[in-house]
Amino acid sequence: MQHFVRIALAAILTAAVVGGAASAANAPEHVIKYRQNLMKAVGGHISNVALLVKGQVDFSGGLGTDSQAIVDLLKNAGIAFPEGTAEGKTKAKPEIWQDRAKFDAALEDTIGKAEALAVAAAGGDMAAVGAALGALGKSCGACHKSFRIKDE
Amino acid sequence: MQHFVRIALAAILTAAVVGGAASAANAPEHVIKYRQNLMKAVGGHISNVALLVKGQVDFSGGLGTDSQAIVDLLKNAGIAFPEGTAEGKTKAKPEIWQDRAKFDAALEDTIGKAEALAVAAAGGDMAAVGAALGALGKSCGACHKSFRIKDE
Repeated sequence: MQHFVRIALAAILTAAVVGGAASAANAPEHVIKYRQNLMKAVGGHISNVALLVKGQVDFSGGLGTDSQAIVDLLKNAGIAFPEGTAEGKTKAKPEIWQDRAKFDAALEDTIGKAEALAVAAAGGDMAAVGAALGALGKSCGACHKSFRIKDE
Repeated sequence: MQHFVRIALAAILTAAVVGGAASAANAPEHVIKYRQNLMKAVGGHISNVALLVKGQVDFSGGLGTDSQAIVDLLKNAGIAFPEGTAEGKTKAKPEIWQDRAKFDAALEDTIGKAEALAVAAAGGDMAAVGAALGALGKSCGACHKSFRIKDE
């Protein structure tokens, strides 16, 4: 993560300099980076919901933000897996593009579970939040199992 | 990041099992984890704004989500640095608690820059977004310089 912080800040400062410069958008390496950043954000948000659900922190003021951000991020995830981005520094399996309908359905399922989490979070019953989080985690895991190369 | 994905999913599934179980909230190691997750989410969001500003991707549908999430996350960051969380697996410098007013002011500055980014994002002028992102990046960097142990 430390390494990521350094990279991220460098990228931001570079962006400020070159902002607006014409360049070919959506080169595979940038799309791959985009979806990895997106999933990193999802991971940060979801891990903090888990800390709350487990009662390990009581910072419940973050719950609404975290659960809504997960929904919004996942709704934007599909476009980050266009054709032609199977190669390179990615854990995405070729199955995403070989059976796109199955991938899209898996992503839709996860979005639905995230929306249920956001509803539970708005309701404020932490047991319901925990149940919704568990369902979301299972949906994440199912999609990863089919479409993400397993971690070493 | 791969390691983080595995940890995050494990944490979520565990949360679903133990959700609601009584445990002492806000133990230092959990608070530290919370703020690291929070900053990880900030990093994911901000890096994707940078990819957009640089024109490396054109997924502008994510811009509003990303910039608003940065604001919301940072507004919740202050509580994640309570007294007693200077020790352990953290890059937080003791200066945070030795000069809390300076830390709070630095965080407020960063929140203000994030709010300016969200305003620029809503306006849709990518040059303005780029300028706001640069200002935010500088504010992040200034706070890190004073209050975060430098990466090796």
